[in-house]
Amino acid sequence: MSPKMTTELLRQLRQVMKNSRYVAEPIQAYIVPSGDAHQSEYIAPCDCSRAFISGFDGSAGTAIITEQKAAMWTDGRYFLQAAQQMDSNWTLMKMGLKDTPTQEDWLVSVLPEGSKVGVDPFIIPADQWKRMSKALKSAGHVLVPVKENLMDAIWMDRPQRPCKPLMTLDLSYTGIGWKEKIAALRAKMVERKVLWLVVTALDEVSWLFNLRGSDVEYNPVFFAYAVIGTDTIRLFISGDRMADPSTREHLLLDSALEAEFKIQVVPYESVLTELQAICVGLSPKEKVWLSDKASYALTEAIPKAHRYLTPYTPICIAKAVKNTAETEGMRRAHIKDAVALCELFNWLEKEVPKGSVTEISAADKAEEFRSQQNGFVDLSFATISSTGPNGAIIHYKPVPETNRALSGNEIYLLDSGAQYKDGTTDVTRTMHFGTPLAYEKECFTYVLKGHIAVSAAIFPNGTKGHLLDSFARSALWDCGLDYLHGTGHGVGCFLNVHEGPCGISYKTFADEPLEAGMIVSDEPGYYEDESFGIRIENVVLVIPAKTKVSDF
Amino acid sequence: MSPKMTTELLRQLRQVMKNSRYVAEPIQAYIVPSGDAHQSEYIAPCDCSRAFISGFDGSAGTAIITEQKAAMWTDGRYFLQAAQQMDSNWTLMKMGLKDTPTQEDWLVSVLPEGSKVGVDPFIIPADQWKRMSKALKSAGHVLVPVKENLMDAIWMDRPQRPCKPLMTLDLSYTGIGWKEKIAALRAKMVERKVLWLVVTALDEVSWLFNLRGSDVEYNPVFFAYAVIGTDTIRLFISGDRMADPSTREHLLLDSALEAEFKIQVVPYESVLTELQAICVGLSPKEKVWLSDKASYALTEAIPKAHRYLTPYTPICIAKAVKNTAETEGMRRAHIKDAVALCELFNWLEKEVPKGSVTEISAADKAEEFRSQQNGFVDLSFATISSTGPNGAIIHYKPVPETNRALSGNEIYLLDSGAQYKDGTTDVTRTMHFGTPLAYEKECFTYVLKGHIAVSAAIFPNGTKGHLLDSFARSALWDCGLDYLHGTGHGVGCFLNVHEGPCGISYKTFADEPLEAGMIVSDEPGYYEDESFGIRIENVVLVIPAKTKVSDF
Repeated sequence: MSPKMTTELLRQLRQVMKNSRYVAEPIQAYIVPSGDAHQSEYIAPCDCSRAFISGFDGSAGTAIITEQKAAMWTDGRYFLQAAQQMDSNWTLMKMGLKDTPTQEDWLVSVLPEGSKVGVDPFIIPADQWKRMSKALKSAGHVLVPVKENLMDAIWMDRPQRPCKPLMTLDLSYTGIGWKEKIAALRAKMVERKVLWLVVTALDEVSWLFNLRGSDVEYNPVFFAYAVIGTDTIRLFISGDRMADPSTREHLLLDSALEAEFKIQVVPYESVLTELQAICVGLSPKEKVWLSDKASYALTEAIPKAHRYLTPYTPICIAKAVKNTAETEGMRRAHIKDAVALCELFNWLEKEVPKGSVTEISAADKAEEFRSQQNGFVDLSFATISSTGPNGAIIHYKPVPETNRALSGNEIYLLDSGAQYKDGTTDVTRTMHFGTPLAYEKECFTYVLKGHIAVSAAIFPNGTKGHLLDSFARSALWDCGLDYLHGTGHGVGCFLNVHEGPCGISYKTFADEPLEAGMIVSDEPGYYEDESFGIRIENVVLVIPAKTKVSDF
Repeated sequence: MSPKMTTELLRQLRQVMKNSRYVAEPIQAYIVPSGDAHQSEYIAPCDCSRAFISGFDGSAGTAIITEQKAAMWTDGRYFLQAAQQMDSNWTLMKMGLKDTPTQEDWLVSVLPEGSKVGVDPFIIPADQWKRMSKALKSAGHVLVPVKENLMDAIWMDRPQRPCKPLMTLDLSYTGIGWKEKIAALRAKMVERKVLWLVVTALDEVSWLFNLRGSDVEYNPVFFAYAVIGTDTIRLFISGDRMADPSTREHLLLDSALEAEFKIQVVPYESVLTELQAICVGLSPKEKVWLSDKASYALTEAIPKAHRYLTPYTPICIAKAVKNTAETEGMRRAHIKDAVALCELFNWLEKEVPKGSVTEISAADKAEEFRSQQNGFVDLSFATISSTGPNGAIIHYKPVPETNRALSGNEIYLLDSGAQYKDGTTDVTRTMHFGTPLAYEKECFTYVLKGHIAVSAAIFPNGTKGHLLDSFARSALWDCGLDYLHGTGHGVGCFLNVHEGPCGISYKTFADEPLEAGMIVSDEPGYYEDESFGIRIENVVLVIPAKTKVSDF
């Protein structure tokens, strides 16, 4: 993997930062967060500004470019990858290490007095805007929204926003119809005394309407917003996707139906102006509900007195608690996935000794076996197929320059999953096709102990996931070992492989209490830089516990 | 324990809430937090307003009185006690249970439109003020500072503020002289670019000057503030305590000494006006450091642009990491304490079968044995001596009406500790003088397993205490059992038995990373209401770990 040469790009960006065609006044720093206008983790190629400007294409990272410096914040999964993909113009800021400054502290330490820091208000979540803006202000600087995305000025071959066909899901997959979901949502809105709810997360729109798309690789979602009123439904979506008869039928667009379930289809781009129009018509005390992680642009469109912000929308929480149709679908998906993996492992056992299998060909073969399964749609993320030292790059994706042959001398780690119409899978197995070293076996055992401790854990209903994190680490800690990533993330049902609001991590964000029906991954690991990586992952379902004395 | 009759008191308070002699405009609710102007947990009798108005005298609780209602928020340790001590005027709000409203939510639900909510600005911490004020404002109400403490108007026999003699501690106890502590503190101030630091917590003042007092029962502290400048030291303290020759010598008040170590002694009551005077003289960008838990009154005295707020002062963090003299002192204190407890247990074994030992006489005997130890100063908290059902009242203190005889038929729980000049102890043992039931033994075993799991835990330097909390619960959870309190709190060295900023709890406040030298309690428990209580507690010292593979 050779780093991207960014000297010229950075020069151009720094000129744009001073160009009155793009910014009202020159800005001294420009923030390029991961993500898109929906605060997605996985994003479409047209939204990969941070990768474009820096070369680093991991799933998490924020770039900040000042007149003199360029710095990239990312977490432990990506330290090695980011260091390899970025050239010497960039400083890597390793989040989670004690001496790494926060973005705010760093900016304050490098900016000249009274600086302006720009950011695209559609890309930055409102809570981050608030924190950043406050910190900059208290140091005499100001955070400004740059409406024109500055990347457009220098990114000549920026791809078009995707607009692929939709797939409808019937009750056998979803368990609950979209009208019923909307009715439940409105009940929550009444409870909280809000008149409107703005849905900005792509997987929330997909879940709410029982629709799936393929606008973003690996994530069966489509670009859209929804605004739900007490008796109106607006779906903001582009292109002619609503012309498809099965979609029209699914959404009852041509049916006689109760007015409050009539869906108004509105162009995707008009969400901001429509929201502004809604807000103009609000009486005092009437509220609009929005996640505090929604974009600053949409949040700002709602006058402060009318904003009702919560960390998660009720859709996010309802989506996390899988119903019976969904848990059954997840089970079916994992059984199919297990069949495909057994076929793969059988193939590997035969082929690896011949010396012809590489990380890439193994990943391809895994995809081939999965794609033969009924209801297969896509992979659920880029397959992490890594052997030997590559295994220590936590979110490694093999490319020709790094591709390594599997052998009987190295540990092989395969973290992969798929989207089936039934559900989403995510599984990691760590293997050795020869005789592992005693130390490698020992580390594997500690990781396995941690994996089992989490999957066997019994805990009170409502326990937050962070309290289970140390169960996964205890066996490693006893030997002075640890791993620099969380233990588990929520998993969608034929939706995003990473979803909130629950998880298992020493970090306490994305940490709504665990309750029966939630599905999270259980994936402790251990990594030795330049040597090997071990990770063992299943997804686990939270269920009511029967115990000896009393039940949780 | 019979509840306090509060009907007449509440009537009087509600009149005062409308009386222009005390409030500029009538207030519709009055908040009475625990604590004093130093945000102490244990408080002097003159500061026990919440106990005065409600009858509930546990160490944690907030009362709110509206025109119609009176409600008390407290945590799981005190649910039973509060219910027993309060009359039917009061609604008990059980914090930590899912359906319990926050104080803000409750106020919003019961207040008439546009209400004023009053609170003494010296008693409420600034962070709580901010949260409360914001929540009330967004619902159309307003939080107002009531300078006149309304309790004064109805509390006729309110005691005087104590002003007891001071004790000086030499280097053999403290390890570091006060001048050295001030110099280290100033280095931190330079690092953070602040000009002034306001010390409001009583134990921080005591620790900084290597002085102890006895103004607050069980806590060897004295009423004082300190304001440290880059070359000045002001100690705000009342009475003639600075007339004592040994104190004068200890503080070098009459010595020729570098100007920056010259202590100016200022009357206790003048802290607000002195702080205001300091702030008037500040140039732009000059900052005053204060804990965000300091009182709203002092915080508000510093103009916003000059405030530098952190969750903990550098004194709080330095105090938590014990030096060698302090850890040695703590060891000596615990050895003495163990001798006293062995004497007690020997006595109990002989006396309990005779039927003449009660919770109170056992507690008295424990105090008698402890007081015979060299360097004994006081108890470190009210002895929890509880047998049978009283054991389920987590912070029970025996009084004549509840006093129960120890017998061979019930579990006996003794949670007690002392202040020695060397250090502070806190230890809980649970005993049975006959044959416990199989179920009682089983529960004891789970609690013991949890206790051992925490004390044996190996973890990376910088791990936060909340990540260890589930180790203490795991054996209980496996049987569907749990306990409604944290697992551990920081312990001072001849200082407060509860101190921040570290602890072990499922709650994530008071949770600075653990590091070598910190001392916390390890006290899981299990309680069956109206039946028994089990708790096993030692204090534990965080030390560097040597492990098989690598060291933390």
